Amino acid sequence: MPQLAEATKELFGGVALGHPNDTLVGVVMAPFSFDGSFRRGWVSWRRNIPGLWLHPINFFQYIDFSGTDSSAWKLLKIVYNHQVFAGVDDFLSAFRNGTLKRLPDRPDQDPEHLAWSTRKRPANAAQRDLDHLPGPRSVSFGGLRFRVDRALQYVSWMGWGMYLGFNRDMGLSLWDVRFRGERVLYELAPQEAIAQYSGNDPMQTTTAWLDRFFGMGSAVRDMLPGYDCPHEAVYLPATTHNFEGSLTRSRAICIFEHDTGRPLTRHTGYHDGEFGAVRGYVLVVRSISTVGNYDYCNGESLFCSPSDDCPSHRPQFDYMFHLDGTIEVRLSASGYLQGGFWEPGQEGYGTAIRETTMGSLHDHVINYKVDLDVAGLENSLLFTSTAQESISQPWFEDDWGSTVIQQKISREYIDNEDDALLKFPPNFQGGYALVNKEQKNKWDIPRGYAIHPGYSPIHNTVVGSKRLLNNANWARYNLAVSRRKDTEPTSSSMWNLNLPGSPMVDFHKFFDGENITQEDLVAWVNVGMHHLPQAEDSPNTRTNLAASSFFLTPLNYFDADISMDSTNAILISAPTQPGRHGPVPPFEYVGVQAFGLDGKPAPPTTAEEMRKAAELYHRIKIEL
Amino acid sequence: MPQLAEATKELFGGVALGHPNDTLVGVVMAPFSFDGSFRRGWVSWRRNIPGLWLHPINFFQYIDFSGTDSSAWKLLKIVYNHQVFAGVDDFLSAFRNGTLKRLPDRPDQDPEHLAWSTRKRPANAAQRDLDHLPGPRSVSFGGLRFRVDRALQYVSWMGWGMYLGFNRDMGLSLWDVRFRGERVLYELAPQEAIAQYSGNDPMQTTTAWLDRFFGMGSAVRDMLPGYDCPHEAVYLPATTHNFEGSLTRSRAICIFEHDTGRPLTRHTGYHDGEFGAVRGYVLVVRSISTVGNYDYCNGESLFCSPSDDCPSHRPQFDYMFHLDGTIEVRLSASGYLQGGFWEPGQEGYGTAIRETTMGSLHDHVINYKVDLDVAGLENSLLFTSTAQESISQPWFEDDWGSTVIQQKISREYIDNEDDALLKFPPNFQGGYALVNKEQKNKWDIPRGYAIHPGYSPIHNTVVGSKRLLNNANWARYNLAVSRRKDTEPTSSSMWNLNLPGSPMVDFHKFFDGENITQEDLVAWVNVGMHHLPQAEDSPNTRTNLAASSFFLTPLNYFDADISMDSTNAILISAPTQPGRHGPVPPFEYVGVQAFGLDGKPAPPTTAEEMRKAAELYHRIKIEL
Repeated sequence: MPQLAEATKELFGGVALGHPNDTLVGVVMAPFSFDGSFRRGWVSWRRNIPGLWLHPINFFQYIDFSGTDSSAWKLLKIVYNHQVFAGVDDFLSAFRNGTLKRLPDRPDQDPEHLAWSTRKRPANAAQRDLDHLPGPRSVSFGGLRFRVDRALQYVSWMGWGMYLGFNRDMGLSLWDVRFRGERVLYELAPQEAIAQYSGNDPMQTTTAWLDRFFGMGSAVRDMLPGYDCPHEAVYLPATTHNFEGSLTRSRAICIFEHDTGRPLTRHTGYHDGEFGAVRGYVLVVRSISTVGNYDYCNGESLFCSPSDDCPSHRPQFDYMFHLDGTIEVRLSASGYLQGGFWEPGQEGYGTAIRETTMGSLHDHVINYKVDLDVAGLENSLLFTSTAQESISQPWFEDDWGSTVIQQKISREYIDNEDDALLKFPPNFQGGYALVNKEQKNKWDIPRGYAIHPGYSPIHNTVVGSKRLLNNANWARYNLAVSRRKDTEPTSSSMWNLNLPGSPMVDFHKFFDGENITQEDLVAWVNVGMHHLPQAEDSPNTRTNLAASSFFLTPLNYFDADISMDSTNAILISAPTQPGRHGPVPPFEYVGVQAFGLDGKPAPPTTAEEMRKAAELYHRIKIEL
Repeated sequence: MPQLAEATKELFGGVALGHPNDTLVGVVMAPFSFDGSFRRGWVSWRRNIPGLWLHPINFFQYIDFSGTDSSAWKLLKIVYNHQVFAGVDDFLSAFRNGTLKRLPDRPDQDPEHLAWSTRKRPANAAQRDLDHLPGPRSVSFGGLRFRVDRALQYVSWMGWGMYLGFNRDMGLSLWDVRFRGERVLYELAPQEAIAQYSGNDPMQTTTAWLDRFFGMGSAVRDMLPGYDCPHEAVYLPATTHNFEGSLTRSRAICIFEHDTGRPLTRHTGYHDGEFGAVRGYVLVVRSISTVGNYDYCNGESLFCSPSDDCPSHRPQFDYMFHLDGTIEVRLSASGYLQGGFWEPGQEGYGTAIRETTMGSLHDHVINYKVDLDVAGLENSLLFTSTAQESISQPWFEDDWGSTVIQQKISREYIDNEDDALLKFPPNFQGGYALVNKEQKNKWDIPRGYAIHPGYSPIHNTVVGSKRLLNNANWARYNLAVSRRKDTEPTSSSMWNLNLPGSPMVDFHKFFDGENITQEDLVAWVNVGMHHLPQAEDSPNTRTNLAASSFFLTPLNYFDADISMDSTNAILISAPTQPGRHGPVPPFEYVGVQAFGLDGKPAPPTTAEEMRKAAELYHRIKIEL
């Protein structure tokens, strides 16, 4: 590298002379060998600045460092901007005689503006934590860092804002969900929950529940503070209406800030600005319904009232808002099984959970309407997948053969609704996102939100059952995307349960060949669980395993991770000694990124003030 | 049913006469109709006792209740113990003339012992929360509910106990993990972490890291209290040794109790003992490594020291212990990408995250050794799967046709190692467990632990790359199961990185045709992530999406959910009025299941004492 200094200085603005303050550093890639018969590797050069992993200069050397005699080590090849050179002389002569094809200008390598690859708070970061929200600016927090406007039923926290809705059919829904002032979702609402059973008896064989019939909203139950939600949560009431009248539950919804117990991002680094963390809080909005899966009566009528005692499964609807713009949608279930009579002839249809009681095999699938508006109403459905390829390059080494097997991404838009009834590919080698092709981030990528699978991303197992023939066609897929229409407001109806052959809403009819490119789109997303009951389902199913979820998460929606803007981000000075042979010396705080319970920036100036600010803000004690 | 009272009393010990105190209740299954042309349904009868969902009596009636004129409604069929009767007279004459084939005795329906289907604390429940643990009985809690013996490196909590290990290669491991005194795991330890890249340049195309080379243990970093773990966590040191000497980190491991923010189980029910919840705490044991994914030097040597500043990805190893016997193993990643030089020719190999910097496509796969000992050393590999079947029954109704399509479970043992290189089936219609065929729970089911997928259950995409030819063969699967051998202690070695063609450990060689029925087995389980970088990976990757996990969870290992024994369970009296038309009256506590910070049972006697006990134990305020 010293011999190349003339060229590297001009081409990359840096040199590697073997000094501690070298402005270029090399990294050798591995493996170094196939079978131990040689030791060779590609050195990739990058700028020696904070976040150096993000500053490769597109200059590579293939070196042989076999054996322990370093005088025998040698340079085999140089590659720069796809041009291959046999050695230093070749490269320098091309550099000097003007035949070298040079890289274009690199604006992101401007020495004046390199903080983007550190954890320092962006200079133009929004003071966003409490901005962009409707309602009065002066707010009493009462020890909470989120706002709930009880009149508007509006919730806001850390740049998020949303209206809450509640109805008889499916309970809690979210409307006009905005992040940093920009709408992400027009509507997020559960649609239907099926539970299809198997057995050798007339009860389980003939059961295919659609819980919208009973009403997730009517079946909502008051939450137990301290058990269902933290005691300090804000509890909201909900009123539903049915054939018996109106019913108000005073603790139908709870809202709280939850410490996930792990950082959202963090890094230990020794360059200036590399060392820090973002504390991982989420805002949780929750409702729990005791769904009248099972009708029963005391001889009085065939139906119990939805507000009466016909409970079984207890779905818990969680919406979790993350600091980076991610929304996690999780459904958990507890409650009683629909048990069957156990006898050996039930083998294959469930499991004995007592001498003569069994838990019966069934699938739960729950559908959500996810009416995303990603950077506007005009959205397209992007399918991103990966597959294996075999390629050749002029600089491949004889050591490893003339081809390389590696993976490659395909990105394609699904243009027609009929092709938008979707399953996740095997090994999850592919995913789906809604993007606005015309709205790009700074790096020229269409801004999008991905629909990312979480726990138990399944669809219904049984296809073609007459008892679920056309009334829950959404359950055949992991998700589907259709044009948004006022005439297609929901994927099901409360009447669908008893009309499998002639349903009020046949989901498949939404898919009638229309173009879905740059249109207002709705994603219909499923969660679910194959429930093979076991002894541990008695007396009640456990939510830790009976959970399913998906994420709505920014996909090149922003220019970088915007959680770095937040008051949850902390920046720390590296230990002055890397601690080669002992414990590291104490850390020092060099910055709490932003601060102020009043929503105003109040940057502290000394390390001690910063430490105190972080302690106050995060309600922790810091001893470093 | 009144006409059948004579028979139901003798057969089922109950009657349904249309009175509020009926001892049998009926539930009609849905759907009631196919297309609206009829309304008919099967009524399934059960005992009218707490947890009635678990007390079906195997007696069914098919009724026609079409139309609004109830005088026209009629009974079409009776089914009892697989015998079909045209109506009440047929059934009663068979009952009276002795031709009726009766069900065997039902010991679980003994009226004296029916608490099993309630949430009441089992009479024989262990006072287990702090039992079964080695070490002194009298312990100062210091505000914590778990014990850490720093000399033994032993951790215990709520029936769980384990030794901690730590080594240079892979950092934190767990040994002799016991629950309620019984060993579940002999060893739980990460083995290797691969990261295979793609690109059009010599850096990314040739990279296939195996991080054990660098040492997850050597790369462990001190945690930031309040950010990486709660401030009140217990922090433990770890010492590793490498070619430079020994290195001690004072905060290498953290241990804390985490409130998951949701109940483990819960139910709102109106029968005595149905109403209650188990608060969802887990114990978290964590370590974070800054893995030297990338070697770089300041011109001094080609390798930096593992204790020096060559950080990139930051894997966070979490082990979470649940109250029901479940262990959640989660890996999260943060830190910097191995960035590439962005130009249009890189299309398909990643995404621009800046003008001329890209995030490069890669797969992470991480392997764990899961040395389960399920109810002893003799274990077998159970594969449980589901598929669709079409069946007929004598009692099928003409309304719905002569066949039913439903799912059915297949259970098979995989007897040979060669068949135990496993992937999850499509739509997760199948799963794997280790069971002891000879050790059964009370209901005659072999006791087992299931390996249940969590977030991002993937395997490596690329197969056949010369740079990963045979040195990470475990990465081709979701999991694998082999005979446990002292000669096969790990699935990789620190030398595997540079010997893909001739690795020190070739995982496939573990699988040499041996029988794995009732042998000491090891499961090798993978987590991972297809990392298609995006703008939001800058500056550092976010742990909320970059996470992968699996669960080790009891599968008929117990006779019922044993979290019901715990001090976290609360039992509540139902509102005396079901609240048909208004808010429910205040709940009353009828029992906190167990209590005592000293580990001794101290059941309170009044509702007020119980409320206070729960408040103290769970550090919450209860206002109901």
